[in-house]
Amino acid sequence: MITQSEYKSALERATLMLERAGIAITSEEQKRLEIADFGLGQLEQTGLEVLTYVNTERVCAKEIVMFPHQTCPEHWHPTKASKLGKEETFRCRWGTVYLYVPGESTPNPACKPPAGSEDHYSARHEIVLKPGDQYSLYPDTLHWFQAGSEGAIVSEFSTRSTDDEDRFTDPRIKRIPEVQKT
Amino acid sequence: MITQSEYKSALERATLMLERAGIAITSEEQKRLEIADFGLGQLEQTGLEVLTYVNTERVCAKEIVMFPHQTCPEHWHPTKASKLGKEETFRCRWGTVYLYVPGESTPNPACKPPAGSEDHYSARHEIVLKPGDQYSLYPDTLHWFQAGSEGAIVSEFSTRSTDDEDRFTDPRIKRIPEVQKT
Repeated sequence: MITQSEYKSALERATLMLERAGIAITSEEQKRLEIADFGLGQLEQTGLEVLTYVNTERVCAKEIVMFPHQTCPEHWHPTKASKLGKEETFRCRWGTVYLYVPGESTPNPACKPPAGSEDHYSARHEIVLKPGDQYSLYPDTLHWFQAGSEGAIVSEFSTRSTDDEDRFTDPRIKRIPEVQKT
Repeated sequence: MITQSEYKSALERATLMLERAGIAITSEEQKRLEIADFGLGQLEQTGLEVLTYVNTERVCAKEIVMFPHQTCPEHWHPTKASKLGKEETFRCRWGTVYLYVPGESTPNPACKPPAGSEDHYSARHEIVLKPGDQYSLYPDTLHWFQAGSEGAIVSEFSTRSTDDEDRFTDPRIKRIPEVQKT
């Protein structure tokens, strides 16, 4: 659960980061920027600030704002029967983001999983994305990512987003954010 | 046909515009930035500078740089048998872009088709996109667009791009650019 005060503060902070990066959004978009704490109640550690530009049956594009060291927890986009899971490309626009995928463990990785949640993180192959760098993830691929010390802004280009179908390694996670009513 | 000198000059200019807008690209990307004159040999009037970030079977994302008053000529993305045509969302990142689609003719539109090519432009309903504004186009929809007096940078989020399948109103158009060999 995100409190109203956390929500407002995160919204303001994410808006300022977009502005600083020269990424224009409309006032209508600013109002629907999603503050997601993944149900863990520790937004600074595990969370994302997401603006979905478009999400049709075929295409989705988002801007993802991450506070310093904020983590998107490990998950995958499952293929169900003949319906391929979500495919996505992350393109770093500002700051640094560290992406972890299956493969050889990177010695001395830049990030650690959030304290207390280590058991729910298994991908250990590190991809470093700085502005202009990007990486494509195909369906059913485990991944998690964490921003560097300045935070990060990442564009996501993908097939349709169906966030409620995402599968997380951590069973405590709730993808759809709950914000306390005023 | 684009001469080597036109190519180099357009590449440099597009790169500077991206830089000025705070859009980071890698040096590898800079080298493969596409300079497209649509075969008309009048790049300043009819042309685009395009960086394709990703183009898989399912998803495509591009950054489109447009010089002042430069026009992308009228075209559509055809559905073929059961294969749906390309769907695309244009999001203005910098400058102003005027998009023309079927519908009621806009009185006193901001743009005119390039001189001498008027017969090959029919969509007359104007959509004005400034930074943060976007518009989605579904398959088989005629459209053309022109940058304002400062030029424009537009992100395109779409299904797979198959440029050679695009259909242009102007039969003289060749979508795949030819650059003079040195």
